[in-house]
Amino acid sequence: MTERILGPVHPTPAATAALRPLFLGAVTFAAGSFLGDWQERNATRSLPHCVEQLDVAGALDNLRRVTGEVEAGRRNMWFADSDVYKTLEAAAWQLGRTPDDAELRAFLDTTAALVAKAQADDGYLNSYFAVDKPELRWKELHWSHELYCAGHLIQAAVAAARAGVGAQLVTVARRFADLIVERFSVVDDVDGHPEIETALVELYRVTGHRPYLDLAKRFLDLRGRGLLNGERFGPRYLQDHVPVREADEVAGHVVRQLYLLAGVVDVAVETRDDALLDSARRLWADAFGAKTYLTGAQGSRHRDEAFGDPYELPPDRAYGETCAAIASFQWNWRMLLATGEGKYADEMERVLYNAIAGSTAVDGTHFFYSNPLHLRTGHDGSHEDAPSQRLAWYSCACCPPNLARLVASLSGYVATTDHGGLQLHLYADGAVKTTVDGFDVHVVTRTRYPWDGRVEVSVTTDAALALSLRIPGWASEALIDGSPAEVRDGYAEVRRDWSAGATVTLDLPMPARIVRPHPRIDAVRGCVAVARGPLVHCVEQADLPAGVTLEDVRIDPAGPLDAGDPVALTARGRVEPPASDELYPAVADVAGEPVELHLIPYFRWGNREPGPMRVWLPVTAG
Amino acid sequence: MTERILGPVHPTPAATAALRPLFLGAVTFAAGSFLGDWQERNATRSLPHCVEQLDVAGALDNLRRVTGEVEAGRRNMWFADSDVYKTLEAAAWQLGRTPDDAELRAFLDTTAALVAKAQADDGYLNSYFAVDKPELRWKELHWSHELYCAGHLIQAAVAAARAGVGAQLVTVARRFADLIVERFSVVDDVDGHPEIETALVELYRVTGHRPYLDLAKRFLDLRGRGLLNGERFGPRYLQDHVPVREADEVAGHVVRQLYLLAGVVDVAVETRDDALLDSARRLWADAFGAKTYLTGAQGSRHRDEAFGDPYELPPDRAYGETCAAIASFQWNWRMLLATGEGKYADEMERVLYNAIAGSTAVDGTHFFYSNPLHLRTGHDGSHEDAPSQRLAWYSCACCPPNLARLVASLSGYVATTDHGGLQLHLYADGAVKTTVDGFDVHVVTRTRYPWDGRVEVSVTTDAALALSLRIPGWASEALIDGSPAEVRDGYAEVRRDWSAGATVTLDLPMPARIVRPHPRIDAVRGCVAVARGPLVHCVEQADLPAGVTLEDVRIDPAGPLDAGDPVALTARGRVEPPASDELYPAVADVAGEPVELHLIPYFRWGNREPGPMRVWLPVTAG
Repeated sequence: MTERILGPVHPTPAATAALRPLFLGAVTFAAGSFLGDWQERNATRSLPHCVEQLDVAGALDNLRRVTGEVEAGRRNMWFADSDVYKTLEAAAWQLGRTPDDAELRAFLDTTAALVAKAQADDGYLNSYFAVDKPELRWKELHWSHELYCAGHLIQAAVAAARAGVGAQLVTVARRFADLIVERFSVVDDVDGHPEIETALVELYRVTGHRPYLDLAKRFLDLRGRGLLNGERFGPRYLQDHVPVREADEVAGHVVRQLYLLAGVVDVAVETRDDALLDSARRLWADAFGAKTYLTGAQGSRHRDEAFGDPYELPPDRAYGETCAAIASFQWNWRMLLATGEGKYADEMERVLYNAIAGSTAVDGTHFFYSNPLHLRTGHDGSHEDAPSQRLAWYSCACCPPNLARLVASLSGYVATTDHGGLQLHLYADGAVKTTVDGFDVHVVTRTRYPWDGRVEVSVTTDAALALSLRIPGWASEALIDGSPAEVRDGYAEVRRDWSAGATVTLDLPMPARIVRPHPRIDAVRGCVAVARGPLVHCVEQADLPAGVTLEDVRIDPAGPLDAGDPVALTARGRVEPPASDELYPAVADVAGEPVELHLIPYFRWGNREPGPMRVWLPVTAG
Repeated sequence: MTERILGPVHPTPAATAALRPLFLGAVTFAAGSFLGDWQERNATRSLPHCVEQLDVAGALDNLRRVTGEVEAGRRNMWFADSDVYKTLEAAAWQLGRTPDDAELRAFLDTTAALVAKAQADDGYLNSYFAVDKPELRWKELHWSHELYCAGHLIQAAVAAARAGVGAQLVTVARRFADLIVERFSVVDDVDGHPEIETALVELYRVTGHRPYLDLAKRFLDLRGRGLLNGERFGPRYLQDHVPVREADEVAGHVVRQLYLLAGVVDVAVETRDDALLDSARRLWADAFGAKTYLTGAQGSRHRDEAFGDPYELPPDRAYGETCAAIASFQWNWRMLLATGEGKYADEMERVLYNAIAGSTAVDGTHFFYSNPLHLRTGHDGSHEDAPSQRLAWYSCACCPPNLARLVASLSGYVATTDHGGLQLHLYADGAVKTTVDGFDVHVVTRTRYPWDGRVEVSVTTDAALALSLRIPGWASEALIDGSPAEVRDGYAEVRRDWSAGATVTLDLPMPARIVRPHPRIDAVRGCVAVARGPLVHCVEQADLPAGVTLEDVRIDPAGPLDAGDPVALTARGRVEPPASDELYPAVADVAGEPVELHLIPYFRWGNREPGPMRVWLPVTAG
């Protein structure tokens, strides 16, 4: 049954699409695999933690204030309904894959009933405005997040509809969506936080109801025309500074920009609007050419949670919001489906294995909101804006349930089909069971990816299948069955007679390697990073000899890198303490001692005692 | 008459003091001198501009709303009364030096009358709380700024009292201060923004009324005990995280921290509390050892306007608020008076000639709020938080009138006396007319400082005067009458028979020099800066050949530096464009072309067409 469930982002047959997603259940990750373990931890730890925190932090009580079940004052952000909806979405995807989880189903049903009860007779639904500011309904969209919350409700409903659970949620979301269509088809207004656009397109995909798509397009076209009161944040923050069709750089609040771009691609492919898709390509080139961290994180500024200027990529003050990393993954997936170009999958991989993976602790119940590439010695971690370690929850709790919904649906993002072909984008130990041109295709993948670059793909099908294997941009060589792969647009295509089953072996050698920054990234000049396969590595204070200050450590980029233990690479380094206390000395004087450096994967940082960490390491003077 | 006017910060005779300030009128700057021109521009351009903007931006109308003269809604920040008070303070100092400025006196009198009329019967005075939130009076001090505004009113009154103008203002301020004493001597509460502390001590100095000093001390002692509701900013932002006596690092909002420290020194010296003064020394060592830009600017973060972690000093995202630079100057002056150590005067000089001087355009009517050391190519200057050029005014207009009051009183900060001695801290073409131990001392200083390091000091006095000349930390040599100076604590002491007049020539050679960053300042690794005398220099896009991107420019630190023209040094450089578009290439490939670099003084930047600028220049690969 679950094999036929559609996953997130499922364009209609009429849409522009180079590639088509598989069913959510078509891909399974093996227990013990990297992605399999991650999904399991999400199901058993992170998602239950989110469910619990909705109660603890008051997000559910806020809805109960609407129904009259709770009389106490409101708690949490005014847009905390979205935390509930994202958790519901996560639950729906999870139930789509593991329908027998009774506890999770009870949460989903109970919460859907609460949400339904909190909905006004006319379909309006927002716990803050319904109770605390009824007179401001739809009046102050620059900050209200009313359509943002509606968008997340709709996305939860889309997941529920596809997973065949929570029918009540679908009814609620459609009633609200219909109210929104009724109003906003005639009133020129947009929400200060994009999200409704992609949600409406997905609801159109589920329902076939064209006004949802039309309204999504209308929102895109109205945006950037100064309809919003920018107040102290300014129009860029709100993505209202320029129509997206005219924009040539990503700007302002990162999550707002990226959610908007997800909607842009969704509208572009469903309306077959190539010019609009070109806008997304143009903004992608800017974002990934000058405004992305090595970990895939985006957002260089805490202030206004903004992208920052080109090449402004400070590692210590990286904002790199977890939600932005998730949004980047989702945007790249849409670009990949639309174009079939491997660079988008490369960025999905980069951000998934580094920024996104690093945002959750190994215990599955602590999270980073911002994801720096350098935690300084002496860091003041007293504020949740830049804590020294992952926290169980945040006053603005957007990230944890966002992670839960992404990871619960992760198997929907790893493979695609097109006419005559199957494409593997993200490698994981597991299986794919799908159809191509009506023929059944069974694939079993054996790999220790991302720890090892060997991927054995066994295929059985009667189709004349072209198997496309992604060759990551980080790979300096790629062998297929021992021979150099021919790579086009990031993929090597393999054709075999699969009818009796055949196994293809892809080898992506993973030596530890030195990565250098573009010379215009001033903040990490004179530094290199160490990576291995898709994983960026870092040095933690915990792995340095006692008494050594992390900022005094240098790496010899010409020295040997030992990847004998992929979770703790070693490199040749030096400790070079400052020669003087002077902040701006007239002369530089370098001395130091050799030290062996141990580098762990970035995503594992901060899982021991809190302490300094850095990805970019200054090189030795020599 | 004006010679006997006391200037800002005038400790009582009972206070701990290594040095004593002179009268405000004791020092005059010659027309055409750097500081003289600055004071002149302030008087003729900046101060009138501030007066005008108080009307334009609504700050005066807010007070007229209290008196009933204006009925329209409130404009501007809720603490904009402080803009009025700072402008009044500037006017008072200015009138203290140039009492015949009828227009300025009319402004002062009219505005003092308005302020008096706006004062409530019980002495309370705040245009926001009086009209808009009377029920919240004193209730939400974590954000209200009520005592902050009161502090600036008091400082204006102190200036008026010392300058012998605006008697009405003194009456108003004392009435309000008395109300504050009445309430806060018994209620445990402090203001979220320090300022009242130093103001109350100064009012004590003017009036001799001990309760003002006692309350200032009480505010210091109550602070850091969690009395304030930190809300989303957290207690560090509000300087409420630790009692200042226990603090060992500067933290949080920079202006709040520095204003507090001004109050700390004021209370310490007036109560002869050495332990409290030691707290200020400790925090000074942290601030100037790890958290100060080369320009003297402080505040590494736009978010929360905070100091940042040790050695976190990004040049492009330097916040370096103008008010913080002014506060640093004022704090260092207090430390200098208390201790007599030259390092404090060094920091006054650094911040005065760079961060503070650079905050005002050459036209005197445009200002920077934040003072970066690098404006990136492609910078988004659309938001006033980080504009590409100085603006005429700001929605939070704290900085321009703060500059006006500092510059109007600048002559009060350049020289001091002690028993038997006269100390010159900041060199300016001009004269000093004072007494030492009851003897008249006349000093004439001839210098082109900061453009030239020769300072001729002619002294006439019958006193056995020890003339102390500050030898700046930047000077690699110092000659007095041609012989190497003997320097102690930053000063060279000269004793002569002055009775017939004698001239001492100080030579501080000013070759252009290379400055290097402490190796833990990651953000400018591999870069050097060029300085000459007290002036930091920078490269502007406007001085580069067409088509060259500033971020591609390198400097050869071993190359000759030509200071033939001190306002446009030249250096040997290269243009090294990126070898690849890749953001994180596997290999670095350097090529380039020689270029001659022209470096202008930092304080002059941004006075041509807006464009990229940088202080720290990457060094050539070779």
